Amino acid sequence: MDDKTISLAHGSGGKLMHDLIKDLFLRKFDNPLLSHMSDSAILNIGETKVAFTTDTYVVKPIFFPRGDIGKLAVCGTVNDLSVTGAQPICISCGLIIEEGFGYESLEKIIDSMKEAACDAGIEIVTGDTKVVEKGTGDGIFINTSGVGVVEKKVLTLEDIHVGDKIIINGGVGEHGIAVLSAREELGLNSNIESDCASLNGLISKILNCSDKVRFMRDPTRGGLATTLNEIVEGRDFGIIIDEEEIPVKDYVKGACEILGFDPLYIANEGKVVIVAAAEDVRRIIDGMREEPFGKDAELIGEVVSQHKGRVCMKTLSGGTRIVDMLTGEQLPRIC
Amino acid sequence: MDDKTISLAHGSGGKLMHDLIKDLFLRKFDNPLLSHMSDSAILNIGETKVAFTTDTYVVKPIFFPRGDIGKLAVCGTVNDLSVTGAQPICISCGLIIEEGFGYESLEKIIDSMKEAACDAGIEIVTGDTKVVEKGTGDGIFINTSGVGVVEKKVLTLEDIHVGDKIIINGGVGEHGIAVLSAREELGLNSNIESDCASLNGLISKILNCSDKVRFMRDPTRGGLATTLNEIVEGRDFGIIIDEEEIPVKDYVKGACEILGFDPLYIANEGKVVIVAAAEDVRRIIDGMREEPFGKDAELIGEVVSQHKGRVCMKTLSGGTRIVDMLTGEQLPRIC
Repeated sequence: MDDKTISLAHGSGGKLMHDLIKDLFLRKFDNPLLSHMSDSAILNIGETKVAFTTDTYVVKPIFFPRGDIGKLAVCGTVNDLSVTGAQPICISCGLIIEEGFGYESLEKIIDSMKEAACDAGIEIVTGDTKVVEKGTGDGIFINTSGVGVVEKKVLTLEDIHVGDKIIINGGVGEHGIAVLSAREELGLNSNIESDCASLNGLISKILNCSDKVRFMRDPTRGGLATTLNEIVEGRDFGIIIDEEEIPVKDYVKGACEILGFDPLYIANEGKVVIVAAAEDVRRIIDGMREEPFGKDAELIGEVVSQHKGRVCMKTLSGGTRIVDMLTGEQLPRIC
Repeated sequence: MDDKTISLAHGSGGKLMHDLIKDLFLRKFDNPLLSHMSDSAILNIGETKVAFTTDTYVVKPIFFPRGDIGKLAVCGTVNDLSVTGAQPICISCGLIIEEGFGYESLEKIIDSMKEAACDAGIEIVTGDTKVVEKGTGDGIFINTSGVGVVEKKVLTLEDIHVGDKIIINGGVGEHGIAVLSAREELGLNSNIESDCASLNGLISKILNCSDKVRFMRDPTRGGLATTLNEIVEGRDFGIIIDEEEIPVKDYVKGACEILGFDPLYIANEGKVVIVAAAEDVRRIIDGMREEPFGKDAELIGEVVSQHKGRVCMKTLSGGTRIVDMLTGEQLPRIC
């Protein structure tokens, strides 16, 4: 019978989820488009490269400081398209609503989706609504899938070289801590705000600043540490990051200290990690800092020939430590 | 506060769901692509018309005779693309799994998805997995979104004319009754099989037989009656169907009699309603009958200038009765 079961950690974005994807989905659904393990699949339609992606949102609570599940569902999918080098054009909206869910709450969420879509310059073009009996859901879950058009080149892991630099557009851990703060039982300061935002404008700007951007990814579930590990996994290079340069807001640091979390593993929803050629780094960071979602951009690390397949961090105390992929699940239902 | 709440009937495919879509989604997300209320949005990408659709599957139980939630999730989205005149090319797979769900069951579902995708000639190219705590989901929910390419013309409601004929490819109500039969408490014969199937092959054949196909839709939630009502809603024509010609298998009739259901309102997952010019009807039906999923094709009705905005049925007893859209929810969680 069913001895092995699915645990919360299988949805964490970390190691168990990667194993599940490799052992089950990649093995069964094996095809060249899927195997890239990128945020979007790239389809050739006519002469056009079309990016296609999907994400389901189960964040709890559904309303949190400076965001809600609706805004998250739009921004998250817009970002998944953008980081592959695509200009998002439209998304779908698939709702699973639990019987008894308030109509006003639903309206508020739909308003957020509309506003986020306007901000990102995209349309919500198709949808589906399912209702499940009370006790068999949890308020509302939202799936958004998205379609975008690649105007320049598709950004892939394969283009990364030793010597490339690593940039992030601002402080890590804000979304995860904001959602946690909205879980009343924790008694955290509820003014902690999510960074949830659509980054397609910022990413267009970056791609206009430089044609030597190698790769981008939004460090959501599993945080910055997991994203960097995905970049080096199975490769003959490593990454060194500098703890001193990684932006972390004081309130995120404070909350992490209280809760015993490492901000490197906390989910972001308005951050992008950029790998780019060293010679263009200054120009990219200067360009980013002119944008509202890029003003705290920092150079945080480098792709190196040592530490193959590993992410290492120069710590504030002067040492070096290995930064692993997230194992287990520290924060369920964060997105 | 939240006085008005969402009920199971809002997910029925019937009148309340239509009202919710109009009052909330169409009003808020207002855009020309969405307003068509068709099964897929049509995007212009380069020179190509691309169909894009989404559907979430919450069927209960997840395994039923001749199908499961995985097969359903592939076939349903393939059919939503096909009925707009598109050739499906790929789909996404977004899973919401409840903590504690069996790995073997998950593997069985993924195998079904793979098999259904192979049968339909499409690939599953991108995915996402979320896990929710025990008691906040119901085993597994699956969203699939799909992308297809329109090779000839986009089929729309606007092309329907008085005098057009209405065809269906086989017996109604089989999927709904099969799922019900799998709910053990009902004690129905469990040999009743779902009609769940990908119809893209059949639909290609139909479009090759005739360039006078006006419109197609798969009569899923809400059944044949609801689909026909969607066709006439707000239009200056009506539809007359002939009860004698509507294929219903004996076991569906029997189950409906026991349960007090009308087969016209029971969900199908392998059926397509075709509206086509009268002069091509014979050719279309002959072509359909050569295909495995079209062998029971029948001409069931006609678009008429009378009964504007209404569906009427010539009954077996010689009378005529109005066939309304589904109101309320007779069968929750059927797809």
